[in-house]
Amino acid sequence: MGADPLRRVVAQLSRFPGVGQRTATRLAYWLLNQPADVAAEISDALAALHRESTRCGVCFDVTSADPCNRCSDPGRDARIICVVERPQDIPAIERTGGFRGRYHVLGGALAPLDGVGPEQLRVRELLSRLSDAAIEEVLVATDPDVEGDATALYLARMIKPSGVRVTRLAHGVSVGTELEFADQSSVARALENRREL
Amino acid sequence: MGADPLRRVVAQLSRFPGVGQRTATRLAYWLLNQPADVAAEISDALAALHRESTRCGVCFDVTSADPCNRCSDPGRDARIICVVERPQDIPAIERTGGFRGRYHVLGGALAPLDGVGPEQLRVRELLSRLSDAAIEEVLVATDPDVEGDATALYLARMIKPSGVRVTRLAHGVSVGTELEFADQSSVARALENRREL
Repeated sequence: MGADPLRRVVAQLSRFPGVGQRTATRLAYWLLNQPADVAAEISDALAALHRESTRCGVCFDVTSADPCNRCSDPGRDARIICVVERPQDIPAIERTGGFRGRYHVLGGALAPLDGVGPEQLRVRELLSRLSDAAIEEVLVATDPDVEGDATALYLARMIKPSGVRVTRLAHGVSVGTELEFADQSSVARALENRREL
Repeated sequence: MGADPLRRVVAQLSRFPGVGQRTATRLAYWLLNQPADVAAEISDALAALHRESTRCGVCFDVTSADPCNRCSDPGRDARIICVVERPQDIPAIERTGGFRGRYHVLGGALAPLDGVGPEQLRVRELLSRLSDAAIEEVLVATDPDVEGDATALYLARMIKPSGVRVTRLAHGVSVGTELEFADQSSVARALENRREL
C-alpha cells in the first residue's frame, strides 16, 4: 500500500519538524474531509514557494520581487537599517509597529567555532549599503546570545568609524530566547530601549 | 504583498486545525530552507489526495483500490468483521497486530439528537455483508462513549438473531478517549478482552 494517497500525505506531512505520525494522520484525515479545494490550494501554495521566491538584492529578505516591497517603499525611513540574522526575524519586528526603517538579513551570526566568520555572512553587503549618505543608524537586532552579541560588537567596530550610529535592541527580549519566537511586547520594549554600542 | 509566496504558504498551512500563525511561519521558513524537492513532494502528495482516494465498496475505508487491499487479502480472516466509526480508527486496531480480520466503517455513531439514525450510518451495508455464511463474529469497536455504546447495543440487537456472534472491545480503552487517539497497549488489551454483547 505504498501508493496509498492517504499514507503518502501522512508520510509527507511527517517531514515537517515537530509534526509526528499522529499529528500528520490527524491532519491528513481532516484534509480528506474538507472539499478537494482545500488540499489543492495548500498544494498550490507549496508548489509555488521555491518557484516564486527570490532574495531581495538589497536587504536579502525572502521576497517575490527584487528589490522587495519594503526596500522600494518610499514611505519607509531610509535613514535606519535594522540588521537581523534571519528573514523570519523581520515579522517579529514588524508586528510591533515600532520600526519603519529598512532591514538587512545577515544570514546568521558570527560563530568562529562553526566556521562562520564575517565572509560567511552578508557583512560586506551591509557595509556597502552604508556608502549611501542618507543612512544615520544601524540597529543591530541579532539574537541576545553569545553569537548574536559577538556579531553586534563586531558590526559596531566595523561601522562606527564611518560616523554611522550603531544601536542594539535592548534586553527587553529575555536572554536565551530566539528573536523569531519572542513575544510582541518584549520586542516592542527592546525597540524603544535600544542602546548605543 | 498578498501574492508573496511565503505569506501564501503561511496562510495555507494555518488552515490546518491546531496550526497557528507561528507554527505555520516556522514550517514555511523551514520548507524554504530545504531543497525545492521537499515542498514539491509534499505538494504533490496533497494534490493527489482527493484525486486518488476512493471508498472501498465493501468496508468503506478510504483507499486507492476498490475493493481495498484488506478486503481482497486472502490472508485475512473472513470470519470476523470489526466495526469502526471512522476510517482513522482502523490504523489504531492494526497497530496492535492483534486483529487479522476484516473491517466495516460505519461512518459515525448513532446520535438521535443530532439526527444520526441507522439510515445515516452504513448499517444496511453491514447487515448485507452478514449474508455471507463465512462470517461468525462482528466485533464492535465504536468509541467508548454514549453514542458508541448505543450503536454497539443497536448492532447487537440487529445481528444476534441471525446467529452471528457480536462482541465489543473491552474497556481497556479509557472512557472518554476517542479510539483514534488511544494508546497502543490499551487498544491491544481491549482487543484481547472483548466481551459478548
